[in-house]
Amino acid sequence: MRMRNKKHAAERIEAQSSMLLKDISEMKSVSMPHIEIGCGKGGFISELAKRNPDINYIAIEKNTNVMVLAMEKTAAKGTRNVKFLLGDATSLEQLGDIAFCGRIYLNFSDPWPKKKQHKRRLTSPQFLELYKKILLPEGEIHLKTDNRGLFEYSIETLSQNGFKLKEVSLDLHASDFKDNVMTEYETRFSEAGMPIYRLVAYRS
Amino acid sequence: MRMRNKKHAAERIEAQSSMLLKDISEMKSVSMPHIEIGCGKGGFISELAKRNPDINYIAIEKNTNVMVLAMEKTAAKGTRNVKFLLGDATSLEQLGDIAFCGRIYLNFSDPWPKKKQHKRRLTSPQFLELYKKILLPEGEIHLKTDNRGLFEYSIETLSQNGFKLKEVSLDLHASDFKDNVMTEYETRFSEAGMPIYRLVAYRS
Repeated sequence: MRMRNKKHAAERIEAQSSMLLKDISEMKSVSMPHIEIGCGKGGFISELAKRNPDINYIAIEKNTNVMVLAMEKTAAKGTRNVKFLLGDATSLEQLGDIAFCGRIYLNFSDPWPKKKQHKRRLTSPQFLELYKKILLPEGEIHLKTDNRGLFEYSIETLSQNGFKLKEVSLDLHASDFKDNVMTEYETRFSEAGMPIYRLVAYRS
Repeated sequence: MRMRNKKHAAERIEAQSSMLLKDISEMKSVSMPHIEIGCGKGGFISELAKRNPDINYIAIEKNTNVMVLAMEKTAAKGTRNVKFLLGDATSLEQLGDIAFCGRIYLNFSDPWPKKKQHKRRLTSPQFLELYKKILLPEGEIHLKTDNRGLFEYSIETLSQNGFKLKEVSLDLHASDFKDNVMTEYETRFSEAGMPIYRLVAYRS
């Protein structure tokens, strides 16, 4: 992704400091958050938050230059129910064994296609164990991807690690799912006529 | 499906009587069978049996005129490890709570697309309860279909009813699965460039 305007990211993040979580432990101060891991440029989380003003959202992003765009986009929409955290999924380990999270969104995560890289996938058994610790009993994982290999893998790891699956769609934009919020990536991809895969995983 | 030569089906079945199970209770006399529910014209089961002479197969088919073709095809291949049963999946209820079956194959089952018909799908919760009773602890369900709706539904019902999933493929003929035995339907369908979906479900 080509990134213009990436200078002064620190200053621009500071300008949105009311939306910024300074470190991971501050996540626990948010009540029953819905968390997007890898929010990218924030098209999804800012729109979702706007539609659901009573839900608290946390957007995690490891790329500073991308996160600043997501923060500015959210600010421009006037929504106040999204907090941002600079970090990656592994940092969730620091939260320990505390169930506080209502929902985890994984949108178009890196497919890490090579066999040796599979453990880095955000639906690897290691990450699923992490999510189980922070999800509330009725919590859910909402996953969307255009990557066939990642979706096949996710169905397997989720079903093998204590999750049940619902709302499975192998062609989201041909399905009757009404409330889809598109990511920037999804918009481009689906306009090219490629299928989008989606599922919801839950435990109880 | 247009069926020629459907006269004298009874006589033609009788000619293959060594392969015929007279009633459902005779299934129990077959040691650790792999069962195909809905064998159609038998292209799949006859080829699979030929490749695996040490495995006992049972092919269930509700249409007499189709079953006779499957029996004759199997006889022509000289394989002796397939037994045929005229009946449908619901008749498996009569077996009671006896785990004896090593594997169940569901190939291109009727998708029953309307919501009201879903309970007739061979992966409905009711049928899955039936399969759990007859499957050995290490038993598996092997499912293939070209029908997106049926595959989505099956992922959901299997994961929600005590099965784990592996070998999930959303485009079987583009995958690296080596030992695929094609059904008559699959051959036609995949030649038209349509994806074939496949999964394996297991409990232990």
